[in-house]
Amino acid sequence: MDDLYVIKIGGNIIDDEKKLSSFLQTFAQLKGKKILVHGGGKLATKLGETLGIEQKLVDGRRITDAETLKIVTMVYAGYINKNIVAQLQANGCNTIGISGADGNAIQAHKRTNSSIDYGFAGDIDKVNTVFFKQLFDKVSAVVVAPITHDKKGQLLNTNADTIAQEIAKALGAHFNVQLIYSFEKNGVLLDVNDENSVIKRINKNYYEELKSPLPGGGGARIFAGMIPKLDNAFTALNNGVKKVIIGKAEELNDLIIGTKGTSLTNE
Amino acid sequence: MDDLYVIKIGGNIIDDEKKLSSFLQTFAQLKGKKILVHGGGKLATKLGETLGIEQKLVDGRRITDAETLKIVTMVYAGYINKNIVAQLQANGCNTIGISGADGNAIQAHKRTNSSIDYGFAGDIDKVNTVFFKQLFDKVSAVVVAPITHDKKGQLLNTNADTIAQEIAKALGAHFNVQLIYSFEKNGVLLDVNDENSVIKRINKNYYEELKSPLPGGGGARIFAGMIPKLDNAFTALNNGVKKVIIGKAEELNDLIIGTKGTSLTNE
Repeated sequence: MDDLYVIKIGGNIIDDEKKLSSFLQTFAQLKGKKILVHGGGKLATKLGETLGIEQKLVDGRRITDAETLKIVTMVYAGYINKNIVAQLQANGCNTIGISGADGNAIQAHKRTNSSIDYGFAGDIDKVNTVFFKQLFDKVSAVVVAPITHDKKGQLLNTNADTIAQEIAKALGAHFNVQLIYSFEKNGVLLDVNDENSVIKRINKNYYEELKSPLPGGGGARIFAGMIPKLDNAFTALNNGVKKVIIGKAEELNDLIIGTKGTSLTNE
Repeated sequence: MDDLYVIKIGGNIIDDEKKLSSFLQTFAQLKGKKILVHGGGKLATKLGETLGIEQKLVDGRRITDAETLKIVTMVYAGYINKNIVAQLQANGCNTIGISGADGNAIQAHKRTNSSIDYGFAGDIDKVNTVFFKQLFDKVSAVVVAPITHDKKGQLLNTNADTIAQEIAKALGAHFNVQLIYSFEKNGVLLDVNDENSVIKRINKNYYEELKSPLPGGGGARIFAGMIPKLDNAFTALNNGVKKVIIGKAEELNDLIIGTKGTSLTNE
């Protein structure tokens, strides 16, 4: 099976022109097939503010109303996606940029099973593995904007972490998939305040240990905010993904060879 | 050779939700392979106004400065392109939406051979026929936003009519290409003020006649504004395109069977 990297980058890279450009240079040179899933960064928020469209939050979670959907479609699938594609082309990496609607790549449904109305937020039903595999006949990289569709004509705003995870799981049967979550920290930290406390490797057993309460009666041994991310990572590992790496996108090569970041594996 | 329709739609369809939806239903049902090239419509202009970005015109021609390029990339390659793709998917037509940067589909250079600085306006160098052909292995329709790139990382705003024409010419060696220019009028009119004066068929000889001055000493026999469009159409016909049709996108089926609009052919 061929190697496939599924890499998610977020706002800390997208919003920083220099960091993004340097990351894309490294990404372009990666051997093998690769999928880059990007979030949105601050541009969508800024554009919304300039246009006077109020960000709606319920219980701290963002609501995608019709106007917000328009903005994220423009910014994510248009501006960010196409600029990344153009930069990768300039780096000699033939790339295609897509949303989940293109080629019916990622089909989703509007989130309804919730007491909160999230608006046009999509929960993923299906990743079109055949389409992704066919794309790699002609390009070496696919850039995915976090916009899906319901196959009834409705675009939907969808979490980029979840998209990366679902793509990685779906393609796990066809490729040796490594899923890389880029992150503003050096990796998973034993002490959230100490960037030098990166845990180099976590397997299933060690993760159970890390989640268990401290002997003195405190909380888990790692920062609680990391637990949902790590739970997702282990779900991916249980579903065909070979390795999950968490660390700084700026250190992509080191993450891959294992000299930086945190590697998660089942064994 | 397979049939291929290359269809260009403009603002009069894109800006009208009902017309667009009905056009896309008909487009989805067209047998054979098809490429839809869309312009921008009023949304980009409106967004620019709302954001306080002044439209710059020199000699009546629009200048694409950096801020305008950002807007057209968002609106054309993001909002319009992805909404069209989602609607075609809903109509059972598997579609992929691209810009010229994706798969290096359309390479261009920044226009410089002019006394006017048009800003980030692209003149096309090359259409990647291999890439378009490969796309049709997996989808039946490709939707193209009028944004190209220079393969050095720069996106460029490019005229949608020209994109349609260059794609049609480039693919003429591989498909039976019919190029359809959608238009706000019924077709090429003998009398610009009479929508019933549609010229059904124009071949090369007849076109020369139509361009020649009237016997009484007036101008050409057809509206001067049509002449650049028709010159382009005949250039396409001389370069591998089988037929050019000009008429209303709302009458797509009639345009194709020849009961509406104007058909241009070499013979």
